[in-house]
Amino acid sequence: MNTVELIKKKRDGKAFRSDEISFLINHYTSGHIPDYQFSALLMAVLLKGMNSDETAALTNSMLNSGKVIDLSSLKGHKIDKHSTGGVGDKTSLIIAPIVASAGIYVPMISGRGLGHTGGTLDKLESIPGFRTYLSLSESKKILKKCGAVLIGQTKEIAPADKMIYALRDVTATVESIPLITASIMSKKLAEGIDGLVLDIKTGSGAFMKSHQGSINLANSLINTAKSFNKNVIAFITDMNQPLGNYIGNWLEVYESILVLNGKVKNDLYLLSTKLAGAMIFLGKKAKSLQDGELVAKQKIETGEAFKKFLEIVELQGGDVNYIIIPEKYSKSKFVKKVRSIKSGYVKEMNTYQIGMASLELGAGRREKEDLIDYKAGIVLHKKLGNYVKTGELLCELHSDFRSKIKIAENMIIDSIKISSTKPSLPKLIKKVIQ
Amino acid sequence: MNTVELIKKKRDGKAFRSDEISFLINHYTSGHIPDYQFSALLMAVLLKGMNSDETAALTNSMLNSGKVIDLSSLKGHKIDKHSTGGVGDKTSLIIAPIVASAGIYVPMISGRGLGHTGGTLDKLESIPGFRTYLSLSESKKILKKCGAVLIGQTKEIAPADKMIYALRDVTATVESIPLITASIMSKKLAEGIDGLVLDIKTGSGAFMKSHQGSINLANSLINTAKSFNKNVIAFITDMNQPLGNYIGNWLEVYESILVLNGKVKNDLYLLSTKLAGAMIFLGKKAKSLQDGELVAKQKIETGEAFKKFLEIVELQGGDVNYIIIPEKYSKSKFVKKVRSIKSGYVKEMNTYQIGMASLELGAGRREKEDLIDYKAGIVLHKKLGNYVKTGELLCELHSDFRSKIKIAENMIIDSIKISSTKPSLPKLIKKVIQ
Repeated sequence: MNTVELIKKKRDGKAFRSDEISFLINHYTSGHIPDYQFSALLMAVLLKGMNSDETAALTNSMLNSGKVIDLSSLKGHKIDKHSTGGVGDKTSLIIAPIVASAGIYVPMISGRGLGHTGGTLDKLESIPGFRTYLSLSESKKILKKCGAVLIGQTKEIAPADKMIYALRDVTATVESIPLITASIMSKKLAEGIDGLVLDIKTGSGAFMKSHQGSINLANSLINTAKSFNKNVIAFITDMNQPLGNYIGNWLEVYESILVLNGKVKNDLYLLSTKLAGAMIFLGKKAKSLQDGELVAKQKIETGEAFKKFLEIVELQGGDVNYIIIPEKYSKSKFVKKVRSIKSGYVKEMNTYQIGMASLELGAGRREKEDLIDYKAGIVLHKKLGNYVKTGELLCELHSDFRSKIKIAENMIIDSIKISSTKPSLPKLIKKVIQ
Repeated sequence: MNTVELIKKKRDGKAFRSDEISFLINHYTSGHIPDYQFSALLMAVLLKGMNSDETAALTNSMLNSGKVIDLSSLKGHKIDKHSTGGVGDKTSLIIAPIVASAGIYVPMISGRGLGHTGGTLDKLESIPGFRTYLSLSESKKILKKCGAVLIGQTKEIAPADKMIYALRDVTATVESIPLITASIMSKKLAEGIDGLVLDIKTGSGAFMKSHQGSINLANSLINTAKSFNKNVIAFITDMNQPLGNYIGNWLEVYESILVLNGKVKNDLYLLSTKLAGAMIFLGKKAKSLQDGELVAKQKIETGEAFKKFLEIVELQGGDVNYIIIPEKYSKSKFVKKVRSIKSGYVKEMNTYQIGMASLELGAGRREKEDLIDYKAGIVLHKKLGNYVKTGELLCELHSDFRSKIKIAENMIIDSIKISSTKPSLPKLIKKVIQ
């Protein structure tokens, strides 16, 4: 096969055979196709698309570029959740212990934050001692022991995805549904799961800004999962405001503890128990989605979910004292209270901008190499539809640097629109696709 | 400016400003934009296009990546011709002496053959001693002395084009009208010309297979030339059969000598005098295209064109004895006569395939580094519409290797279709656009 002829084929809008896709992936990962040819191919794929057969073949080639974890020795269902990411999205920390406490294995491989979104690994690592880079054998041991493990992508898992993602990032070829699908699914399928719940975020803080784009991505992910005989349920959920009230790594662990303890019943609680419920349903521990959601809520009420969280933290090297008494955690040097300059309803939150303000405070990364301040972030006191009076608290900004607070404050003020009329609120869960 | 954002802009179908285009070209040629980003950009340009302003700005940036030859010290018009290339297309060798003998400067920068097409430089270098790589000052001296010079692209001329073309070649981004336009025009404008005649080939042996594609390319070239205030005339001409009867480097020099001597009045003669006539018209030495064509034919009849050819060859170091007595040139070891296996009219000639057969015999290059056998090639005894009897000569194959002749013979037999009914012939000149 000839690389230039294959690029030409996609450029001219034709579909690849699966052997052509595996040639391209194998030769790229082995260094026989140079970056400059592969990036031209990626642009052609972005602009000309791939059908569902091609997407499945691409996922398969990327999956097989590395190891597939064999969990067949563990009796019981193995179910994971994947979110396309947003601001304040910390459901993994809540869901994993709920679902594991319901008797289902949750082998979860997560990522780091970049740009306006946070990453599960960074949040977990804000817990002193918590280790996310475990060997596959250690991961399996922990999974077997407590039912859940939360780790980062190792070199053994879908190395083709790591190479291709790095190239997409610098060649404006990230926003392609087949490429996003193969990137997500190659990693998730490598976990050795039976089923998957997808949380596709849509709105100003999401990767997919449009509702239709989110549905297209959901359908592509579902088709691919099904072609690998995996059970899958997709939720299209709102990201027109941050999820929950806390943004920033330790701040999000803190809010997760509040939810797991049953102390907070906000949108984060609602979404987490819905997603966990779907996983419990897929794991055959409930007869319906509604039934699964009830089981999830019970696991919080009985304290089993929180206990499971402590178990996970301990097994992965984290100091559980901070989970039991989170007030022990050190605070940012400065906490700025941002107050409303007028009265009215919170009508709009530019969630991308709020995520960028959190990054500015020290909670995020502009470049992959940037260091994170785990304490930094934002606590929201008002969300969409809330009434606020002049001078009333809108949010708090946490940072060790006064100069960063100043910049973030201006960004936040710009991001939150107050209106005299009560706005209609976006639905938290916009669509469930099975 | 940010390279990824610029790639995204073109990917999303937006038009570049001229400062964005010059940023991209300057940073690519200086090594600040890596190949893998530039190739993704090239694919986005190929698939999303560029408007005429962008194409002109691209041409300008590529032109200014190197030197523009200053011919202002030469009194008189400077006119060149560019052909998009085909099989047996040797008009440059005939046109340059005709037009120079009419008192117009012809500063011609040509290319080498690759794949099924030949290149003017290779044809010229088949003349013993002929040098095509001259310094700009030596070129100018020869141009001043005899009115024409035929050279290769030096490092000083549009270096951006050289870099970009090499990348396009390996990333399936050659076939883009704005990229082709900028590549051609940046080199031609660097010659310091006032006017340009374009020969856009269309048909089975051309780069542009479709009539509409050829017209689009012609319009793009004309718009760009006009935006630089250059006079331009484009001819859309037939490439559904080789031009003339000789294919191969020295064989084409030989046929050019026959035409320049007035011994042959075939399609090559007709096209060469038309194109030369248009150059003579642009150079203000004729009142119309028709008048220019008459002047061109006269220059052949009077022997002035042939004399000028001898002068060019001598000044560029070539041995004129071979031009005066071409029979002195050494012959291929084997000359195979290919005869028709049936009677009828020549209905179709797969010209691409005939070009590839000539390459197979040793006359062309598969890769840039391949060596050429100047003697090798094909002499056609029949062309489209000719009647041929069983056993009658169709063509001769010249090569030093019997094995190559065998392969080429099969290719040629496949390429030429004989039919019992007289076919309608393609028009040699399909359209003239001014």
